[in-house]
Amino acid sequence: MEQTLSLLEGHRSIRRYADEPVTAEQLDRILGSAQMASSSSHMQAYSVIGITDPQLRERLAELAGGQRHVREAPVFLVWCADLSRFAEAAGMHGAELQTSTEYFLVATVDAALAAQNAAIAAEAQGLGIVYIGGIRNDMRAVSELLELPPLVYPVFGMCIGVPAEEPDRRPRLPRTAVYAENRYPAGSRREGLEAYDREYREYIRGRSGGGRDTTWTQEMSGRTAYPPRTFTGLLREQGFRLED
Amino acid sequence: MEQTLSLLEGHRSIRRYADEPVTAEQLDRILGSAQMASSSSHMQAYSVIGITDPQLRERLAELAGGQRHVREAPVFLVWCADLSRFAEAAGMHGAELQTSTEYFLVATVDAALAAQNAAIAAEAQGLGIVYIGGIRNDMRAVSELLELPPLVYPVFGMCIGVPAEEPDRRPRLPRTAVYAENRYPAGSRREGLEAYDREYREYIRGRSGGGRDTTWTQEMSGRTAYPPRTFTGLLREQGFRLED
Repeated sequence: MEQTLSLLEGHRSIRRYADEPVTAEQLDRILGSAQMASSSSHMQAYSVIGITDPQLRERLAELAGGQRHVREAPVFLVWCADLSRFAEAAGMHGAELQTSTEYFLVATVDAALAAQNAAIAAEAQGLGIVYIGGIRNDMRAVSELLELPPLVYPVFGMCIGVPAEEPDRRPRLPRTAVYAENRYPAGSRREGLEAYDREYREYIRGRSGGGRDTTWTQEMSGRTAYPPRTFTGLLREQGFRLED
Repeated sequence: MEQTLSLLEGHRSIRRYADEPVTAEQLDRILGSAQMASSSSHMQAYSVIGITDPQLRERLAELAGGQRHVREAPVFLVWCADLSRFAEAAGMHGAELQTSTEYFLVATVDAALAAQNAAIAAEAQGLGIVYIGGIRNDMRAVSELLELPPLVYPVFGMCIGVPAEEPDRRPRLPRTAVYAENRYPAGSRREGLEAYDREYREYIRGRSGGGRDTTWTQEMSGRTAYPPRTFTGLLREQGFRLED
């Protein structure tokens, strides 16, 4: 199915949307596709919350760092890792779930696999999407807003709508930097990263009309200046254990 | 693109493969599609190791709990969360990466999104796949076998090959159990889970020719009897921090 491969290979994140709705039928196919993703031991340890309330949208857009597309996208989904159904199912048979890093990982991966199916199902219907990690800026506030119960946490958001922009394809790392046979490659990747930096710089210059001049390794280096998001305390309060 | 939607909605895990190779061209499209998946801040914090060495395969199949398809699949990929390139990029500019739960999460999600694109790209080429969480049974042994450096850990494996079985569609949780608007639904889901149990029991009976009789909540409950995999110690030794 060449069409599907071209769709996957042609992905771009879309942050500007036409003033057109995403139909109920389109959302149904998006969620149906998400539900058919693989899941560890068929646990299906994720939940999705679609934000239709404009005030809630406004608040989430602020919490995500003032991202206007979170406010304006026709559809905004919050993808949650969710062990609460697992716990409820066990409780129905008198068993108790002991959480662990493994289950935290399983729920997080289940949410990610389902979300990526949703992203592809959206793009297959002519829609565009962008993931929003910014909802982890203040995981506590987001969890309270969405009234997330114990054993549930918001992993990321996703904006969906009819594209009103056509960004260039953002260059990826060279294949040799991400794929190897049998063993992890030893030694420095500096040469490959420098070659990628040159390609990436051209992309950034083009995208910014020459206004910006940076490389991938510079961008990565720059990120280390910012303290990463912190939410382990909230996760523990929500019943996730990261000890084992 | 109805074809793509049908592909997503028709997913089944495949554990038996025909005696046909996956071609280099097919694998190239699979990896190319994986590389085009979304990535947090374009960090691309994952790596893939394709296991072609039969002895390595044999050992990984044992470590995964004796899963013959890990040994026999034409292609077996190990998907790793990888912050080592991020650290190397920062080092090229005299900066140092301080890891955290956030970066652990970012790398894990990046690996999952790329892997799911790979899964779809494989299925789009008439191949079948199954995720192998079993490589987390002994994350230390797998990491040593694959010579994973610090800031890299194996999230899951993936078998790929030409399907030699046609399993039934495994029923998913009702939509109302995984999707809601604006807020997480309050109260018990017991009714919905019981309805799902009835549907799931029919599926299991059919699949086992009547030999097995269980429900989804029974299966989930049964899992709590087994101690979950433990690997936080190994993760810490590999330089991942889960403190913040």
